[in-house]
Amino acid sequence: MFEAAKLGRKVDKDIFKEQVPDLRTELLEAQRKLHESNTSVVVIVSGVEGAGKGEVVDRLNEWLDTRGVETFAFWDETDEERERPRYWRFWRTLPARGTLAILFGSWYMDPMIQRMSGKCSEADLEAELARISEFERMLTEDGTLIVKFWLHLPKKEQKKILNKQDREDRKRWKMAPRKDQFDEYYDDFEHMAERIIRGTDSGIAPWYLIEASDARYRDLTIGRTLLHSIQSRLASPRVAPDTTYSHAPSLPSDPNARVTILDHVDLSQSLERAAYKKELKAMQSELTDLAWKAHAQKRSTVLVFEGVDAGGKGGAIRRITKAIDSRLYRTIPVAAPTDEEKAHHYLWRFWRHIPRAGRLSIYDRSWYGRVLVERVEGFASEQEWRRAYQEINEFEEQLEESGVIILKFWLQISKEEQLARFKAREETPYKQHKITDEDWRNREKWDDYKMAVNEMVIRTSTEYAPWTIIPGNDKPFARIEVLKTVRDKLKAELKKDGKQFHTHCKRSR
Amino acid sequence: MFEAAKLGRKVDKDIFKEQVPDLRTELLEAQRKLHESNTSVVVIVSGVEGAGKGEVVDRLNEWLDTRGVETFAFWDETDEERERPRYWRFWRTLPARGTLAILFGSWYMDPMIQRMSGKCSEADLEAELARISEFERMLTEDGTLIVKFWLHLPKKEQKKILNKQDREDRKRWKMAPRKDQFDEYYDDFEHMAERIIRGTDSGIAPWYLIEASDARYRDLTIGRTLLHSIQSRLASPRVAPDTTYSHAPSLPSDPNARVTILDHVDLSQSLERAAYKKELKAMQSELTDLAWKAHAQKRSTVLVFEGVDAGGKGGAIRRITKAIDSRLYRTIPVAAPTDEEKAHHYLWRFWRHIPRAGRLSIYDRSWYGRVLVERVEGFASEQEWRRAYQEINEFEEQLEESGVIILKFWLQISKEEQLARFKAREETPYKQHKITDEDWRNREKWDDYKMAVNEMVIRTSTEYAPWTIIPGNDKPFARIEVLKTVRDKLKAELKKDGKQFHTHCKRSR
Repeated sequence: MFEAAKLGRKVDKDIFKEQVPDLRTELLEAQRKLHESNTSVVVIVSGVEGAGKGEVVDRLNEWLDTRGVETFAFWDETDEERERPRYWRFWRTLPARGTLAILFGSWYMDPMIQRMSGKCSEADLEAELARISEFERMLTEDGTLIVKFWLHLPKKEQKKILNKQDREDRKRWKMAPRKDQFDEYYDDFEHMAERIIRGTDSGIAPWYLIEASDARYRDLTIGRTLLHSIQSRLASPRVAPDTTYSHAPSLPSDPNARVTILDHVDLSQSLERAAYKKELKAMQSELTDLAWKAHAQKRSTVLVFEGVDAGGKGGAIRRITKAIDSRLYRTIPVAAPTDEEKAHHYLWRFWRHIPRAGRLSIYDRSWYGRVLVERVEGFASEQEWRRAYQEINEFEEQLEESGVIILKFWLQISKEEQLARFKAREETPYKQHKITDEDWRNREKWDDYKMAVNEMVIRTSTEYAPWTIIPGNDKPFARIEVLKTVRDKLKAELKKDGKQFHTHCKRSR
Repeated sequence: MFEAAKLGRKVDKDIFKEQVPDLRTELLEAQRKLHESNTSVVVIVSGVEGAGKGEVVDRLNEWLDTRGVETFAFWDETDEERERPRYWRFWRTLPARGTLAILFGSWYMDPMIQRMSGKCSEADLEAELARISEFERMLTEDGTLIVKFWLHLPKKEQKKILNKQDREDRKRWKMAPRKDQFDEYYDDFEHMAERIIRGTDSGIAPWYLIEASDARYRDLTIGRTLLHSIQSRLASPRVAPDTTYSHAPSLPSDPNARVTILDHVDLSQSLERAAYKKELKAMQSELTDLAWKAHAQKRSTVLVFEGVDAGGKGGAIRRITKAIDSRLYRTIPVAAPTDEEKAHHYLWRFWRHIPRAGRLSIYDRSWYGRVLVERVEGFASEQEWRRAYQEINEFEEQLEESGVIILKFWLQISKEEQLARFKAREETPYKQHKITDEDWRNREKWDDYKMAVNEMVIRTSTEYAPWTIIPGNDKPFARIEVLKTVRDKLKAELKKDGKQFHTHCKRSR
């Protein structure tokens, strides 16, 4: 593969000087158009030691209008980053629509270092590359243009350059080899780079192999490639790649087959008042301790509450929060996104609120809005909500890998019970604001929501992040069911010792 | 002072049970109105050990709708927080308009601990209390309601409670005394608490002293006080307190006295092309090294660029960034605030972008918009921009204290030169987008801007964050002036050794 990057191509000084002004003008023009578009651009600068990655990044910053560009290096992880899933630090750097981010190394850095140092296996690397491909596909489908550069040097030249760099300089780089290991290192590295590039070189986010021996050739080529990539993306309407969205069984299209999981929920279950009080007390006392225990073990918990309107989400949530020290939990109500949130992938706003280790987050509605209200009301296109199942599964898998305990609740009530509750709300002064025209409109789409919920549960109930469907007609019964489920899960998870979290490259199971 | 908190007041269980439902209903109703208002609420829960601060916070979370409340404890500082000015972590927690934040301890915690342990002097404490008062005044003037609770216990009761808590529990608290030191500790602590409360008890952000011996009395009193505070704030139109805004000399109101600092700038200065090229090269090479040195010493730099339209800000900035490794700087263009930013104090969006230690941030326009465009165009009320001078000085003082090097540039050109540049822009294809109708409109207000700049420079040029006025008619001259100023300042600052940053309680000089 790398033969193409060892051809000794050069650009004369005069030609460079002559061509740069035009290139710059065109880049600025492209950037201006980008600014008015819905596209964001991620530029990844990677490559071998000594190929001038830093110089390239500086050059791009010189050529572009820096007001629409942010540059990120991933030198060290802060503790705020370490206490969250690995990809949190990358989500933080994703550019808003209309802007550009230059990533130094990016998500390719860790797997490379880890594999080179033998800290992860071939299989781990394979899994990580699959994750990267997924991630890049997801961003691309959302309108992000990803341009990846790999800077390469022939063995001889790299050796020369590394020898020239004094020790001080090299200390900053983890991957620079000791002189006596150079030959072996070069071949290993090249071999591994080839694997990574091949494994993540897709039509939607291609790698560009750049010969880096001559700085002028290198910079000019990169500048032009970036320019053309932006231009062609802005010129042609984005065509969503033809991907399969999920491996879960499809729903029968026959309208007679509209019997769903929800139809099998036994809504008649209930709990006596006395038993409720007793159980509630016992359960809450256990929860108090478990929350502190989770904090001590630095395990975070994510609880997702979705459900029919007036299904009792608020009441169930309050029974949990009452048991937990308020320094340990956060309730996150999910309402309309802010404009900063709208300028990113829809999962961005959930990533940004991921708590530090040892905290419990309770989502009152969640990222599942994408496949519920946004689907039913048509706020998301069919393509958007269809691919959301896989995006969500991937998201939750990453949470789980970093040690987050995940539980998802769907609170179901019957249509009659909902009507009764709506009417009761209208009659209680301090509850009137809880019932709006929208609630009545949603009620008319009862069956559409039922089908959407059914598909959601089928496609996103995973071993690591299961859905629990709660029969909600009887509030005491529902609340105790929720509490029990949370307690049992925490108990089971907090027993586990020596579980490895924050793994790099490696997947934890 | 604390006698009032030792009266042994109690509330019976039955009365508590009877009164809570109404209080809760009213709190929810107040919260709903708050949500529709421009007001945000900060609740501070402080007090002696064992008084039940945690219980109170839990109780408030139980009574309020947690969807509009966030709770923050300040247990530990993350490294991202440590690498920024002290108050950054508090700015992070400030609630958006319409919402409520409950702060455990808050900005009162550190000074108390530091003073108790003798780590800061009386004078330091005094200075810190003045800062707190300023900070709270600023938030209040911006529409934040601050409600501060101090929970107190008589000596005997505290001793009993602390003895009951087992060791494990107490390990979490830095301030719990050893048993044999208790008597001395209690008196010292009470004495110091009294000083802090008196020093920060203002009409706009009063302290409420709460007797905490009886949990029901304590919670009911706090709930009601909070309710009444919110209700009365929402009921009466906010009256800005009568404060003096600055101690700088006022400008003469006589219109004949319109000779400003800017009129004394010698715009005829220029630099030969050859000398420019030579100086540019030398200066940039020095800057390259200085930026790495600053990174090694973990010193951040903030460069602010303001100036007349077409004054050459962009060109000057590019001459700096070209010299610096792009991993070390960020250019921050200041455009219209996002809706999240609009929901906070206008300085919030600048606080949120403060870089970690060792980085250089270049502001292309800045917080000075408040006293420039917002003043001249009437986007800010007179009260708002008048108080901004002091707010900005305070902000920059905090940056400086944490080790940030600050330089501010005003690029001035003559009215004729501006006209020439506007016309040139209109004629150059790739510069046409840089000239808009707004630029022409601003030009008509030339004199208004001149007066605003004059007052800005007078009121905000401080020893630690001076303004440098750059004569900009000759671009080469202006750029070299900027580079020289940056180089000289970095050189001088990076020499200083053993300078103490990230001081707590203490001010660094």
